[in-house]
Amino acid sequence: MEFEESGIGEECGVFGCVAAGEWPTQLEVAQVLTLGLVALQHRGQESAGIVTSNGASPPTYTAHKGMGLVSTAFSPEALTKLRYGNLGICHTRYSTTGISELQNCQPFVVDTLHGKIAVAHNGELVNAHALRKKVMRHGVGLSTSSDSELITQLLALTPPMEELDSPDWVARIKNLMTETPTSYSLLVMFKDVIYAVRDPYGNRPLCIGQLSRLFSNPKRVSQTLKWCSLSPSVHYIFLSLLINRYYREVLPGEIVQISRHGVKSLSVVSRPEGDLPAFCIFEYVYFARPDSIFEGQMVYTVRQRCGRQLAIESPTNADIVSTVPESATPAALGYAEQSGLPYIEVLCKNRYVGRTFIQPNTRLRQLGVAKKFGALTDNFAGKRVVLIDDSIVRGNTISPIIKLLKEAGAKEVHIRVASPPIRFPCYMGINIPTKEELIANKPEFQDIAGYIGADSVKYLTVEGLVSAVQEGIAFHNEKDKMNSNNKSDRKVGHCTACLTGKYPVELEW
Amino acid sequence: MEFEESGIGEECGVFGCVAAGEWPTQLEVAQVLTLGLVALQHRGQESAGIVTSNGASPPTYTAHKGMGLVSTAFSPEALTKLRYGNLGICHTRYSTTGISELQNCQPFVVDTLHGKIAVAHNGELVNAHALRKKVMRHGVGLSTSSDSELITQLLALTPPMEELDSPDWVARIKNLMTETPTSYSLLVMFKDVIYAVRDPYGNRPLCIGQLSRLFSNPKRVSQTLKWCSLSPSVHYIFLSLLINRYYREVLPGEIVQISRHGVKSLSVVSRPEGDLPAFCIFEYVYFARPDSIFEGQMVYTVRQRCGRQLAIESPTNADIVSTVPESATPAALGYAEQSGLPYIEVLCKNRYVGRTFIQPNTRLRQLGVAKKFGALTDNFAGKRVVLIDDSIVRGNTISPIIKLLKEAGAKEVHIRVASPPIRFPCYMGINIPTKEELIANKPEFQDIAGYIGADSVKYLTVEGLVSAVQEGIAFHNEKDKMNSNNKSDRKVGHCTACLTGKYPVELEW
Amino acid sequence: MEFEESGIGEECGVFGCVAAGEWPTQLEVAQVLTLGLVALQHRGQESAGIVTSNGASPPTYTAHKGMGLVSTAFSPEALTKLRYGNLGICHTRYSTTGISELQNCQPFVVDTLHGKIAVAHNGELVNAHALRKKVMRHGVGLSTSSDSELITQLLALTPPMEELDSPDWVARIKNLMTETPTSYSLLVMFKDVIYAVRDPYGNRPLCIGQLSRLFSNPKRVSQTLKWCSLSPSVHYIFLSLLINRYYREVLPGEIVQISRHGVKSLSVVSRPEGDLPAFCIFEYVYFARPDSIFEGQMVYTVRQRCGRQLAIESPTNADIVSTVPESATPAALGYAEQSGLPYIEVLCKNRYVGRTFIQPNTRLRQLGVAKKFGALTDNFAGKRVVLIDDSIVRGNTISPIIKLLKEAGAKEVHIRVASPPIRFPCYMGINIPTKEELIANKPEFQDIAGYIGADSVKYLTVEGLVSAVQEGIAFHNEKDKMNSNNKSDRKVGHCTACLTGKYPVELEW
Amino acid sequence: MEFEESGIGEECGVFGCVAAGEWPTQLEVAQVLTLGLVALQHRGQESAGIVTSNGASPPTYTAHKGMGLVSTAFSPEALTKLRYGNLGICHTRYSTTGISELQNCQPFVVDTLHGKIAVAHNGELVNAHALRKKVMRHGVGLSTSSDSELITQLLALTPPMEELDSPDWVARIKNLMTETPTSYSLLVMFKDVIYAVRDPYGNRPLCIGQLSRLFSNPKRVSQTLKWCSLSPSVHYIFLSLLINRYYREVLPGEIVQISRHGVKSLSVVSRPEGDLPAFCIFEYVYFARPDSIFEGQMVYTVRQRCGRQLAIESPTNADIVSTVPESATPAALGYAEQSGLPYIEVLCKNRYVGRTFIQPNTRLRQLGVAKKFGALTDNFAGKRVVLIDDSIVRGNTISPIIKLLKEAGAKEVHIRVASPPIRFPCYMGINIPTKEELIANKPEFQDIAGYIGADSVKYLTVEGLVSAVQEGIAFHNEKDKMNSNNKSDRKVGHCTACLTGKYPVELEW
Repeated sequence: MEFEESGIGEECGVFGCVAAGEWPTQLEVAQVLTLGLVALQHRGQESAGIVTSNGASPPTYTAHKGMGLVSTAFSPEALTKLRYGNLGICHTRYSTTGISELQNCQPFVVDTLHGKIAVAHNGELVNAHALRKKVMRHGVGLSTSSDSELITQLLALTPPMEELDSPDWVARIKNLMTETPTSYSLLVMFKDVIYAVRDPYGNRPLCIGQLSRLFSNPKRVSQTLKWCSLSPSVHYIFLSLLINRYYREVLPGEIVQISRHGVKSLSVVSRPEGDLPAFCIFEYVYFARPDSIFEGQMVYTVRQRCGRQLAIESPTNADIVSTVPESATPAALGYAEQSGLPYIEVLCKNRYVGRTFIQPNTRLRQLGVAKKFGALTDNFAGKRVVLIDDSIVRGNTISPIIKLLKEAGAKEVHIRVASPPIRFPCYMGINIPTKEELIANKPEFQDIAGYIGADSVKYLTVEGLVSAVQEGIAFHNEKDKMNSNNKSDRKVGHCTACLTGKYPVELEW
Repeated sequence: MEFEESGIGEECGVFGCVAAGEWPTQLEVAQVLTLGLVALQHRGQESAGIVTSNGASPPTYTAHKGMGLVSTAFSPEALTKLRYGNLGICHTRYSTTGISELQNCQPFVVDTLHGKIAVAHNGELVNAHALRKKVMRHGVGLSTSSDSELITQLLALTPPMEELDSPDWVARIKNLMTETPTSYSLLVMFKDVIYAVRDPYGNRPLCIGQLSRLFSNPKRVSQTLKWCSLSPSVHYIFLSLLINRYYREVLPGEIVQISRHGVKSLSVVSRPEGDLPAFCIFEYVYFARPDSIFEGQMVYTVRQRCGRQLAIESPTNADIVSTVPESATPAALGYAEQSGLPYIEVLCKNRYVGRTFIQPNTRLRQLGVAKKFGALTDNFAGKRVVLIDDSIVRGNTISPIIKLLKEAGAKEVHIRVASPPIRFPCYMGINIPTKEELIANKPEFQDIAGYIGADSVKYLTVEGLVSAVQEGIAFHNEKDKMNSNNKSDRKVGHCTACLTGKYPVELEW
Repeated sequence: MEFEESGIGEECGVFGCVAAGEWPTQLEVAQVLTLGLVALQHRGQESAGIVTSNGASPPTYTAHKGMGLVSTAFSPEALTKLRYGNLGICHTRYSTTGISELQNCQPFVVDTLHGKIAVAHNGELVNAHALRKKVMRHGVGLSTSSDSELITQLLALTPPMEELDSPDWVARIKNLMTETPTSYSLLVMFKDVIYAVRDPYGNRPLCIGQLSRLFSNPKRVSQTLKWCSLSPSVHYIFLSLLINRYYREVLPGEIVQISRHGVKSLSVVSRPEGDLPAFCIFEYVYFARPDSIFEGQMVYTVRQRCGRQLAIESPTNADIVSTVPESATPAALGYAEQSGLPYIEVLCKNRYVGRTFIQPNTRLRQLGVAKKFGALTDNFAGKRVVLIDDSIVRGNTISPIIKLLKEAGAKEVHIRVASPPIRFPCYMGINIPTKEELIANKPEFQDIAGYIGADSVKYLTVEGLVSAVQEGIAFHNEKDKMNSNNKSDRKVGHCTACLTGKYPVELEW
Repeated sequence: MEFEESGIGEECGVFGCVAAGEWPTQLEVAQVLTLGLVALQHRGQESAGIVTSNGASPPTYTAHKGMGLVSTAFSPEALTKLRYGNLGICHTRYSTTGISELQNCQPFVVDTLHGKIAVAHNGELVNAHALRKKVMRHGVGLSTSSDSELITQLLALTPPMEELDSPDWVARIKNLMTETPTSYSLLVMFKDVIYAVRDPYGNRPLCIGQLSRLFSNPKRVSQTLKWCSLSPSVHYIFLSLLINRYYREVLPGEIVQISRHGVKSLSVVSRPEGDLPAFCIFEYVYFARPDSIFEGQMVYTVRQRCGRQLAIESPTNADIVSTVPESATPAALGYAEQSGLPYIEVLCKNRYVGRTFIQPNTRLRQLGVAKKFGALTDNFAGKRVVLIDDSIVRGNTISPIIKLLKEAGAKEVHIRVASPPIRFPCYMGINIPTKEELIANKPEFQDIAGYIGADSVKYLTVEGLVSAVQEGIAFHNEKDKMNSNNKSDRKVGHCTACLTGKYPVELEW
C-alpha cells in the first residue's frame, strides 16, 4: 500500500546529534542532521527543519526550516548558515491537516527567562485541549495549534521563575511528563545538551546510537565519541556508516541527557500502576522502515512473521504468492515460506511516478495505478495468485491493481492482508481517515472481495498480529546492552487502539 | 536618494479595513487589503501578510503571509483563501536585520483565553528589553524577536484571567499603553472590531478614511459606510478612488474603534505633563509618499518648502537647478522657485534596474549608478548645476552621480541637501546605519565636497527643517474635521533624534 | 503612457562589445554585455540572451538565454559560464506574440559550412514571407517563425559553397541586403569580429561607441581601445562611464566591422534612387530612452520641442501644465515654457506596482490606476489643468487618470497629446494593436474628450511632429565626427507609416 | 545498479498516439501522451516534450517542452494548451552531455516547403558528422548539435522541391534510410499521420499497440480503434489499461503508417546482404523496464535466465543469494533458483533520497549510499552472501554497499554480475563513460574483488548473455501476430559492441 494513497501517516520524525570531544568540532553537524532528515523523510514530507547550537554560554542557535522534501528545503546556503553548530536537532513533518504553513514547522526555538530552548516533538498530546486552556489561563497567548508550542510554553511556565544561568530543565521536563501521559518522543536542546524524552507509555519510538568512526578525526580516534538520538530507529544506516554502534531504545518514561561527554540516563517517570506500555503496533505494520529495530527485533523480521501467521490463519488454494511492491514484500516472503507456494513477482514499479496534472473527473483518472505499476504478465498469466498487501485502509488502491492483473491474464487473485482492518481513529499522532472513510466501517465491507474485484480477501487477526510482534521481543540481547540494568522491569505492551478501540489512557475532551 | 542604497528604511506599513453595512459583505475585503498593501509597499518589501475575520462569534480568522513583494507573496489561491473576510488587517515588513524569515511576518494571530486576536504593528518599543524580561518572568516563552509578539503576549497577560466571551480589550490596550510610551501604531482585530492605536507621542503616523462609493453596492448606497484605518496616509489614492473621504489622523495616545457601525474614539492616553508630541520628522523628509497628508498638510508641499528654505539658507551662484529623481524633485522645484534659477532635468532613470549578478570587487561595481541613471547631456553640458538631494546618509550614492555629470560636461556641480545630516541612531522603528557608517560622523565629513567630488555641499539646518515642517500645520482645516472637538488641545512637536540626539523619552536598556 | 498598457512596443534591443588590445582580455566582456542588456531592458522584457566568443580559430562560442528580465535570466552561474569571451553580442526581446518561448530567444548561433556564426536582430523583414518560401524551396526547414533564423539561413545559403576557413561574410551580408530592404539593425559575430549592419532605410537605430578608460588596464592605457556597437543609443550611460567616447551612428545601409584592432566602415549599400531614409519617428516619440542621441540630437530635447510645438498648435486657457509621469515630462516642460503657464506636478508614481492577482470582472478592476498614481491634491485642487501625454493608443489608460484628478478637485482637465493619433499597423518591427483596437479608428474618436472624460483633447499634427524632429538634426556636429566624410550625402527622412499609412517600401505579401 | 551512478544511460524515449474514429476525438490525446511520457521517464529525465496536431489541412501543431521530469515540465496550463490535438508525438531526453538546454528538447517542429513536420528521435546516427557536412554544403545552417535537427533538414532537403499539398514523405524517409544505416527509432508526424520508422539494423526498440476500450466512447465501441506507437515497449501498462491489445514490434527497416483509419506497413528497407539485425543487447540487461516485451519475450524473464546462466557459469559456496534492489532482483531470483540457495533480502531502499546539498570533498561523501540503502542486518549477519548486480560500470557504487554489508556483519560478500564487463564506447545512442573511466579497462580490474572489497567477483560471459537472450525469442507466438506474414524472413542478431568492440556497421568519422 502506498503512503500517498493510504491516507494514513505519522506526523513526524525527530533526530538529534551532539559532536563529542573538543569544540569547535571537526564534524559537520548540520550535514549529519541533513542525512538524518533524509533517513526520516518517509515519516514526513510536508516540511523539514534543523536548529543547531554552538553550545556556548549563552548559546547561539541557528535555524533553517522549509516546506517540502529535505532536498527542496535545504539549499547550500541553508547548510552554510547552520555550519557553526556543535550539536543540533531536526524534524520532518507530515501534512496531517490542510494547514500546511511554515510557521508550524519544527523545531521550535523559544526564548525563556532562563535562555533559549529548542524543541522537536513526535506524537500528539491526548490532553492537549485541557493543557491549552491551562496555559492560556496563565495569560499565555498561543500562536499555533501545534503541540510543540504548547510543550515549550509548559516548560517555560514551570516554577521557579527566577533568572538563572543553569535552570533545572530536567525538573521542568519531569513536571511536563506528570501533566500529560502520552504521546510524545521529544528532543529538548538547551545550550550544550540534548534531552531525549519518551512518554511513560512509550507510544512513539525513540532510540540512541553512536556515530561511526568515519566521522572521527583520524588523528584522535580515542577521544571522539559522538552520540545521537533518533526516532524511529533507522539505525542500521547509521550502525554501519553513520553510527559506529546502535546503542539502545530510550525506555518509556525515560529522560536521557546527551552531551559531548556522553549519554546519561537521568530519570524514568513511571506509568500508573498496572498500566502496560503502549508502543504503537502500526510502527511494525507500516510506518517504520524495515531496517528499524524496536524492542530488540528487526521490523522486516516482524513483517515476515506476520506473513507466516497469515498463511497459518488463512491458507489459499493457489499457484503463486506475490507482493504489492515494496512495502508488503517481507510479509509475502513469509507467506510463501509458510505455505510452500513459490514467491514470484507480478508487478514492477515505475520509479518516476510524480504528480501529473491530469484533469480530474476523466476516464484517465482510473489509470493512476497504471502509471505506478507494470504487470509482469508472463509470470502469472493463467495462474491463481495470492497477493499480499500490508494493510487496506480505504480500498481504492488495491482495486485497480486487481483489475490490472486480471486483464493481464491472472486466473484468480486472492488478497491476503498482513494486518487487521483499521476501524477506529488514533489520537496519539497518527493521521487516519475519518471513521466513515475507513473501508472496514462501510457497508461494502460485508462483501469486500466483490467490492474490490478479488476472488477472496482475508485479514490477519488482532491476536495473530500481536503474537507475531511479541514473540520476537528480546530486551536483553546484545543489541540492547545499555538496557541491561533495567531488564528486570521491562514489560511488554502495544497500542492496538485503531484496530480494537481500546486506548491506552482515558481520552479527555 | 534611493531606498535601496541609503541603508535607511522604516520597518513597516499597516492597513486595515472593515466592511460597513450588512454581512456577508458585497465588498471584496481581501482585495481591498491587497490594494492597501501595494500602496504601502514602499514601507516594506521583505514580506507581507493579511489576516481577515468573518466577524462571527466565535470568529474564523484566515491568514496568508509571504516573503517578498505583495505581487510575489499573494497568489490567486491566497486571495481565494481569504475571501470570506468581512474585516481584516495587513502588514508590510522592511528587512531591518539579517533575519528575514517568514515566522517574523505580521500580522500575528494569537489564541488567548478570551479568543483569538490579530495584531499588526508599525514602530519599535523603546523599552522592549525590559518588557520581554517581564513577560518571560511570568513564564511566557517568546518565539521571535518581534515587538509584535511581545505586544500580543502583553495583551494576553493583562488580568483579569477569566474565560469571557467579551473581554475588555480596550482596558488591556490602555494597560499596554501605560507600560510602553512609544513607538507604535497598532491595529488590533478581535472578532468584528478593529482597534486603531497610536502611541502617546504620536511617533508613527496613523489615520482613518472612508472607502469610496465605488465599493458601495449601487442598490443601497445610503447604507454602505465603509471605514478603514491606515498608516501612513497614502490616502489620496484612496480619497478619490478607494476612499470616498479622507477622515483624519488618529491622535497621539488615542484608541479608535472601527466596526461595521462606524468609527468611534474611545479614549486618549496622555503623555507625561510637559512632553510634546514627537512625530517622526523623517516621515516628511523621506519615508512618506509625497501624496500623504500629515497634520493637515501634504508631504509634497512640505518638501517644496524645505527646498525654498534651503535656497534661502544656501544660495548658489549657478545656471540651473536639478534633482536626483524622483524623491528630491519637490525640493528641487522649491529651490528653483525661490532662487529664480531655471529647473532643468539632468538625469533620467532606467525603469528596469533590478539586481544583476555582477561579481563584486571588480571595476564594474562602480558602474552601479550607470545602470540606474542616464545623463541628459545637452541639458547641462557647460553649465553650473545645483543638484538637490533629499538626504545623504553614507555618501556613496551621490558620488558616482556627480562623476557621471562631470564626465558628461557639467562645469560645476553643487550639492544642496534638503535635510540636515543624520548623526544619531533611531530607537523608534527606523533602521539607520550604525553611527560609524553615517558619513556625518566620519572624518571625511570635514571635506564632504572633496570626498564626493562636488564643487560645494550644503545641508538644510535643523531649525530650517523644523520651521519648514511646522509652518504649514493646520489641524483645524476642513480635511481634519473629526478632530475639531480636540482642537484646543492639539500641540505641535516632532522627533528630530537622528539629527540632534534628543530622544522624546529616556531610553531604557 | 505606460508601456505595459499602451499595447505597443518595439521588438528588440541589440548590443555587442569587443575587447580591444591583447587577449585574453582583462575586461569582463560578459559583465559589460549584462550591463548593456539592462540598459536596453526597456526595449524587451520577454527574454534576454548573450553569446560570447573567445575569438580563437576555430572559435568557442558560449551562449546563455533566459525568459524574463535580465535580472531573472542571468544568474551568477550564467555569467561564470560566459566568462571566457573576448567579444560578444546580446539581445533583449519584446513579447510581440503569444508565442513567448525560449527557442525564439536571440542571439541565434548557427553552424555553417564555414563555421559558426551568431546573429542578433532588431527589426522585422518586410518581405519575410517571400524569403521564407525561397529558403524552403532550397530545401531548408525553418524551426521558428523568427526573422533572425531566416537571416542566418540566408547568410548560410549564399554561394560559394566551399569549406573555407575565411569565408567572405561581408559579401554574404551585402547579398542579404540586396534581398531585403528593411527593417533590420543586425549584429553578426564570426570568430573574432562583429559586423554591425543597418538596413538601407535606416529604419532601426544602431550606433557605435568606445568603452571608457574605467575598463582599461591601468598599466597599458594607450593600448586599450575598446569598441562596442549598440542599439539604440543609450550611449550617454556609456559615454561617461561605460564608453569613453560616443562615436557615431551606423549609416543607413552601412556595414561596420568591429574587431580588437578598431572600427572600420566596410561598405554602404544604397537605397533605390530617390528614396529617402525612413528612420522610425516613434523612436523619438516613445521608444527610445530620453538620453539617447539620434541624428545628432538628444531625444529629450526633441520631446521638449514637440511640447512647444503642441503649445503653438493647441494653446489652452488654463492655470497649470502637468505631466503623466514620467515619459511625458519633457513635452510637458516644453509646453509650459512655450505657453507661459506654470509647470506643476499633479501625480506621483507608486514605485511598487507589480502584478496583483485581483480577480477580473470586479469593481476593483477600475482601480488599476490607483495602484500606480497618487494625486498631489493640494497642487491642483480648484485649478484648470493641462495634462500632457506622449501618445494615446487605446484610450483606456488616460481615462481613469482624468477621473482621479477630477474627483480630487481639478476644475478642468485638458488633454494635450505630444504626437499624432496612431491609425495604421507597422510592418517594420513595432508591435501595434490591430487597427480595430486603435482608439483613432473607433467611432468614439469623434468625441474623444467625452469618451475619456476630459474637457478637451488635442493632438500634435503630423507636420508639427516632423518639423519638431527634423529642425534639430545636425549630422556634422562634433558628436558625429566619424561621419564627416559622408556628410555631403546624408539625407533626412523619417517613417511615419503608423500615422499616415505611407510605408517606406512597397509591402509584399 | 542505479542509473544516476552508473554513468550510463540511453538518450531518449519516444511515444506517439493517434485517436481513431471521428474527430474531434472524445479522447484526451495530450493526457494519454503525458501518461506515455511518465511510462518512459526512466529513459530520460533531462527534458520532455509533446507536440500535438489537430490533423486538419493545413494542420495546427501545438508544442510544449520543459526541462526536468514530466511532472515538473507539464503544468495544467501546458495540458490545456495541447488539448485540441487528435494525434501527437512525445519525447523524453537523457542528459548525455553538459549542454542541457531547452533548445535541444524534442520533438522538433520544422516548417518546410510542403508544410510543417514534427520529428522525435531515439538513437544516434553513426555517420552524423558526414551528414552534417552534406547538409551544410547545401547551404543549410544547423542551430543545434542534435541528430533530430539533422534528420529533419535531411527530410526537407530531399528532392523534388515543389510546393505540394501532399508531398511524398515516405519517399523522403526511405531516402533518409539509405543515407544512414543506424541507429534510429523515429516518429515523423505530418498533418494527420504518424510514420513509425525503425532503422534497418533494428538497433533501438519500437513497437505498436492499441489503446484500451477504457478510452473508447462507450456508445460506439466498434468504431473506436485507436493505435499508438511506442518505444520501448512498456506495453503491459498499456495492454491491460491503456492498450487494449499489444500489437507487435516495428520490424528492422520498416516504415509503418498510423492514422485514424488504422495501422499500415508501408515498406521494409533492407540491410546489406549478410548483415544480421543488431538490436541493442543492453536493452535486455539494463535499460528497458522489466515488463517490456522484445522479440516475443518479457525482459524480466530474460534477466531471470541471465541469473540462472550466471549460476551455472559461476557457482558460489555461500549461504544466501540477494539483490541490489531493484533492478537486479530478477537475476538474483534466477541465480537462487538455479543454485538452490535461499533468496533473502539484505538491503532496503530509502524512497526519499533526492539530492542533498552536502558539500563535496568531505568525509560525508562516502555516505551517499547510506542515504539510499538500509541494511536488513538480521537477515545476513554471520552469513556468506552472494550479491547479484546487473552490471558494474565504474565500480564506485558497489563498493560502499559491500562495506555496508560487511560492517553490519556479513561473513563473506561474493559479487556476481549478470552481464559481461563493458569495455568499449557506444556510438548508437547509449551514453557510456569514456574508455578510461570504465572499470574493466583500468589496472584495478586485475584485482577487482580487492578493489571493491568483495570476497570474489564473477561476470556473466558474452556467450552466456547472448544465449540467455536468444533462447527465448519467439517471433511467431500469439503476441506478435501481425508479424506472421514476415515470419519466414525474421533473423536474429544483437549488438554487443560495448562488450566486444564488434560494431554492426563500419564507423565513419
